[in-house]
Amino acid sequence: MADDLKRLRSEIEETNLALLELLNRRARIVLEIQRFKTEHDIPAFLPQREQEMLAELMRRNTGPFSNRTIHQLFSEIIGASAELIDLGREVVALPRAEPMIVRVGGEMIGGEQPIMIAGPCAVESEAQMETVAGFLAGLGVRFLRGGAFKPRSSPYSFQGLGSRGLQILADSARRHGLLAVTEVMDPRAVEEAADSADMLQIGARNMYNYDLLREVGRCRRPVLLKRGFSATLDELLWSAEYIISEGNEEVVLCERGIRTFESQTRNTLDISAVPLLQLRSRHPVIVDVSHAAGRRDILAPLGRAALAAGANGLMVEVHPDPDRARSDSQQQLSPDEFVRFLAEVGFPGTARP
Amino acid sequence: MADDLKRLRSEIEETNLALLELLNRRARIVLEIQRFKTEHDIPAFLPQREQEMLAELMRRNTGPFSNRTIHQLFSEIIGASAELIDLGREVVALPRAEPMIVRVGGEMIGGEQPIMIAGPCAVESEAQMETVAGFLAGLGVRFLRGGAFKPRSSPYSFQGLGSRGLQILADSARRHGLLAVTEVMDPRAVEEAADSADMLQIGARNMYNYDLLREVGRCRRPVLLKRGFSATLDELLWSAEYIISEGNEEVVLCERGIRTFESQTRNTLDISAVPLLQLRSRHPVIVDVSHAAGRRDILAPLGRAALAAGANGLMVEVHPDPDRARSDSQQQLSPDEFVRFLAEVGFPGTARP
Amino acid sequence: MADDLKRLRSEIEETNLALLELLNRRARIVLEIQRFKTEHDIPAFLPQREQEMLAELMRRNTGPFSNRTIHQLFSEIIGASAELIDLGREVVALPRAEPMIVRVGGEMIGGEQPIMIAGPCAVESEAQMETVAGFLAGLGVRFLRGGAFKPRSSPYSFQGLGSRGLQILADSARRHGLLAVTEVMDPRAVEEAADSADMLQIGARNMYNYDLLREVGRCRRPVLLKRGFSATLDELLWSAEYIISEGNEEVVLCERGIRTFESQTRNTLDISAVPLLQLRSRHPVIVDVSHAAGRRDILAPLGRAALAAGANGLMVEVHPDPDRARSDSQQQLSPDEFVRFLAEVGFPGTARP
Amino acid sequence: MADDLKRLRSEIEETNLALLELLNRRARIVLEIQRFKTEHDIPAFLPQREQEMLAELMRRNTGPFSNRTIHQLFSEIIGASAELIDLGREVVALPRAEPMIVRVGGEMIGGEQPIMIAGPCAVESEAQMETVAGFLAGLGVRFLRGGAFKPRSSPYSFQGLGSRGLQILADSARRHGLLAVTEVMDPRAVEEAADSADMLQIGARNMYNYDLLREVGRCRRPVLLKRGFSATLDELLWSAEYIISEGNEEVVLCERGIRTFESQTRNTLDISAVPLLQLRSRHPVIVDVSHAAGRRDILAPLGRAALAAGANGLMVEVHPDPDRARSDSQQQLSPDEFVRFLAEVGFPGTARP
Repeated sequence: MADDLKRLRSEIEETNLALLELLNRRARIVLEIQRFKTEHDIPAFLPQREQEMLAELMRRNTGPFSNRTIHQLFSEIIGASAELIDLGREVVALPRAEPMIVRVGGEMIGGEQPIMIAGPCAVESEAQMETVAGFLAGLGVRFLRGGAFKPRSSPYSFQGLGSRGLQILADSARRHGLLAVTEVMDPRAVEEAADSADMLQIGARNMYNYDLLREVGRCRRPVLLKRGFSATLDELLWSAEYIISEGNEEVVLCERGIRTFESQTRNTLDISAVPLLQLRSRHPVIVDVSHAAGRRDILAPLGRAALAAGANGLMVEVHPDPDRARSDSQQQLSPDEFVRFLAEVGFPGTARP
Repeated sequence: MADDLKRLRSEIEETNLALLELLNRRARIVLEIQRFKTEHDIPAFLPQREQEMLAELMRRNTGPFSNRTIHQLFSEIIGASAELIDLGREVVALPRAEPMIVRVGGEMIGGEQPIMIAGPCAVESEAQMETVAGFLAGLGVRFLRGGAFKPRSSPYSFQGLGSRGLQILADSARRHGLLAVTEVMDPRAVEEAADSADMLQIGARNMYNYDLLREVGRCRRPVLLKRGFSATLDELLWSAEYIISEGNEEVVLCERGIRTFESQTRNTLDISAVPLLQLRSRHPVIVDVSHAAGRRDILAPLGRAALAAGANGLMVEVHPDPDRARSDSQQQLSPDEFVRFLAEVGFPGTARP
Repeated sequence: MADDLKRLRSEIEETNLALLELLNRRARIVLEIQRFKTEHDIPAFLPQREQEMLAELMRRNTGPFSNRTIHQLFSEIIGASAELIDLGREVVALPRAEPMIVRVGGEMIGGEQPIMIAGPCAVESEAQMETVAGFLAGLGVRFLRGGAFKPRSSPYSFQGLGSRGLQILADSARRHGLLAVTEVMDPRAVEEAADSADMLQIGARNMYNYDLLREVGRCRRPVLLKRGFSATLDELLWSAEYIISEGNEEVVLCERGIRTFESQTRNTLDISAVPLLQLRSRHPVIVDVSHAAGRRDILAPLGRAALAAGANGLMVEVHPDPDRARSDSQQQLSPDEFVRFLAEVGFPGTARP
Repeated sequence: MADDLKRLRSEIEETNLALLELLNRRARIVLEIQRFKTEHDIPAFLPQREQEMLAELMRRNTGPFSNRTIHQLFSEIIGASAELIDLGREVVALPRAEPMIVRVGGEMIGGEQPIMIAGPCAVESEAQMETVAGFLAGLGVRFLRGGAFKPRSSPYSFQGLGSRGLQILADSARRHGLLAVTEVMDPRAVEEAADSADMLQIGARNMYNYDLLREVGRCRRPVLLKRGFSATLDELLWSAEYIISEGNEEVVLCERGIRTFESQTRNTLDISAVPLLQLRSRHPVIVDVSHAAGRRDILAPLGRAALAAGANGLMVEVHPDPDRARSDSQQQLSPDEFVRFLAEVGFPGTARP
């Protein structure tokens, strides 16, 4: 009896090894096809072919595995092969290619020093932006954020100053030698925003807005792409690919918290996203601590944690007078609080001469 | 000693009653302001005023409650007052106003009979749509769905046939006397879609795409608004408000599953959304069982459950040959499976003479 | 060139078919081993063997697939094989074996008629239970619930009357010819509870309390096993297996809502769990609508939906005076509300003569 | 007309100020009652009283606010008052009292240096533990973990060596001058575990197992309490309170990842939990990076992030030969990997002479 069991087990082992050999053989053919396609400039990925393969295999299947199981196992095998090859322009490539540096004006995102993007949630007035810009420039911060178009849950909430807001932001940034970062929501407004801002932001709510992604992919500005608050990391990388596939490779990824059951924070900062995105893509990764926390009192520990995890920069909301802010008043730092925040996270910026 | 405690407790009770009186007095003033504004056509909701009030209260606060607590309690009180009044055009109004009926062509959504929207995930060819349209018309289904613009995670996946797809859908629907329902993703494509389709769909990925919502709010077609897969019901109602506030009240809400940790289904159908949306708005509510389940084998029980919970209709993906579909092949029903599905959910449709 | 690509593709197809053949061969050997083990009474599942296999395969792997990928693909293959065989006493078996009926007293759960379990959240007094029991018996309800040991977030909240509560519940049930259902939390209290109640409940918080599960597996009472509020369906089935593996097969599964980001309901009722659990196990499935909703106003639509999805019964909290209840006052129905609820869900119970 | 609106608005403002005054008056009375109760040793919290108050207020309510709104607003007010006072032994107290230090043997958790708890998922053999213990001691690690009782989803998976495992762990620890940390699952096994281990662990699956919490609250060993994978921070603090309320204040809290939709990691490490738990309680907080990640390749960045966020220590799984581990083989570090991990997180431990 023990012999029978032994024999069956060694049959399993033989089959395992034969499967191992076949799987790797399949992977080699896939790589060869890929090389061939690249040489001859043939599109890499044909989802229809995949479906046909699966259908064929289910037709040929005689069991004991069900068609469902066969579909699932081969989807895994096809998926594993796909990971081997260069999807699009390498966003998803493993192992990590040389990390890239995204240049905005004279600044580098992804270089040795982490960057800091700061400024109010929304551009509210010239006076407000002038105050903030001067203050930030004095602290050595190089990136000024400010929303001209604000995505708000309610159509009756303050929606931003629009074009005038863009102008105020650009003027304040220029006067103080800062780089302006601003969100775009409407594909028809991308050109105008690209004319005045140095970097365009795609907000969490628009991570799946593919026509918008394509539009910023066609403009000549670096893009800060925020993770949707329920987007998987895969989906974030695919959204980056929408931008890249239009010709704009200057994409910075931004983790800003995901939606979970925990209600002490506005979102749950997914700190693992930082190393995982860096393992799986070449793009710099920054962390927006303000939207993750939704409260001021834990921003410094979160900022420190993000940098310790390897983030290439932080984004923080700073307002001259948070209690009077027209949006997000709970999470914006006052100037004093921001100075403390910089010290607590150990930001190496220094005032320009 | 017991007397001291008793005295303190009766002081608490007196304070409670005084608070009760004051809260209701405040509610009455709010209602009076609202009446006044409506008569004089003044915008209802000024978020800035709210912020000013809260800031004032925090300045005046002497404790023992912290400013944080005071901010939170008054936000609740202000929020409760807001619920009393007519926000926008009553989407959020409680208790439920007369439920509305959305008319598409000659059909009513929200009437006595639940409706059925069926068709393939994507328009793939004339032959495919002709087959499906004829088949559905023969079963008494009145709404034909089919995606011409497909939002896909990867830019390399099949993205739909675009304008040609719209035309194919419209032609097949017209030939068989059906009403065409199709998704729009780009505000610049709304006009074209509204010209050929009978009802426009906003997909789950675009529920927060406010410029798109405003654009469909300006067109003359009824809108099927799907809940984002991590959107709260409040956010869904506010997104409806974006459409309504532009003048288009013909909005049908659609529950299609939310993202959770459970992986047996593609999404978790939030069945409670059906009665809750009906309690909190006047709009019809339908359920897309295909995207909720992401698998064929439980569509009938989910469809039955949705109708039993009070849904005004169902949406289901049907494809002439699901295994060869260019997207969502796991969840589309074959014609035979759809016939069984109709029988199992007890759909009352009958073939037109 | 086209020829080269064609050749490579046909090699892929050949490899696919060879993989298909090998996978099914492996499945046949697994089934043979299983048969052999059953005959000779050898434990079915040796996780260590599995780990050894995976380690061996990684040692033998020469790429291009990484060890990580090989580990993942073979874990899937081994998992698919495991699904083929009879784990334990078939809880996880696919396709569904003959659905089983759990008998409690003279009643059947899983039979033609759905059952109704009703009663207060907690046993609070003899008067309360006497009122409820008489009332429920008069409506044809056969199962009386009531917590003697209450799991509460805070140790300072009302924890139930303990042993005295058990006695009150049992007495009220007996006097009115009802069957008593009550929760156990401590393995040391199982025997006492089994002596007085007709059915033992494992609450959501204790679904992973394996020593408790084993203990109820050793007693002679049917068990109502609630899904943890963040448990996958797989985990629920494995927890059932803990009970069954000790010899007690009389397990009824209970869906009661899962924790998600949506806050309009206390939990999100996962209606798909009903058909999925029935597809994947032989055990009856009931739905606790009170804990899912956490509010009274949508219980009837949820109850209708659960029955329409195929649930074998409902569980509802009913209290003579919900506003004075010592726990869960927001979600317990008053007697009048419960009468309306029964009518609205179409409960077929009738008063005993 | 503008005057009318102005008048109404100033009425709102007066009401606001009156409410502010009343709310703070109520808070002062609550504090007085609390002081009185402490002096006279009366239980602090009577949930029934709270229910009675709410019921009374609803009876007295004449609108326009609905009873539902009144219930909600007063629940907030009562909750805010409760936050002011000392619940139990201050776990929930705000602002943070002097952080406490938990002493285990001669070591301090919560002191200047973060601690490191390392060792295999499960105790598998004497040889394994001897190897690991010697290796860890040589690196200056002071806490040795190892599971003797393993909570596993399946009853057929390896369940740990039980009492023999406890003995092996204790012996290895003693031989190498380490402190033994081990999980307890069954209240009946607490005494035995407390006899041999230096610190008892409550695992994530048992965070709601209140009878077990009470039992470890009665023993004389420090307790490592892990957050349930879907537990809110409030619930974690209340579970700590179960232990403390039995007399054992030596509780260390442990964040170990929560369940979300993201599947790249086994759980999502909730890094915000570290500062939030420290803000809201006196207890040390450590982070189990192995269970959060469920994979080896991002443990170092997560460890650095946890320490940067202020964690008082880390917990990591280390196994002499992870590929042959009987559980969790994907996430346990090999000795070489652990040496690199310590270097990367900058662990200050040094070998004992």
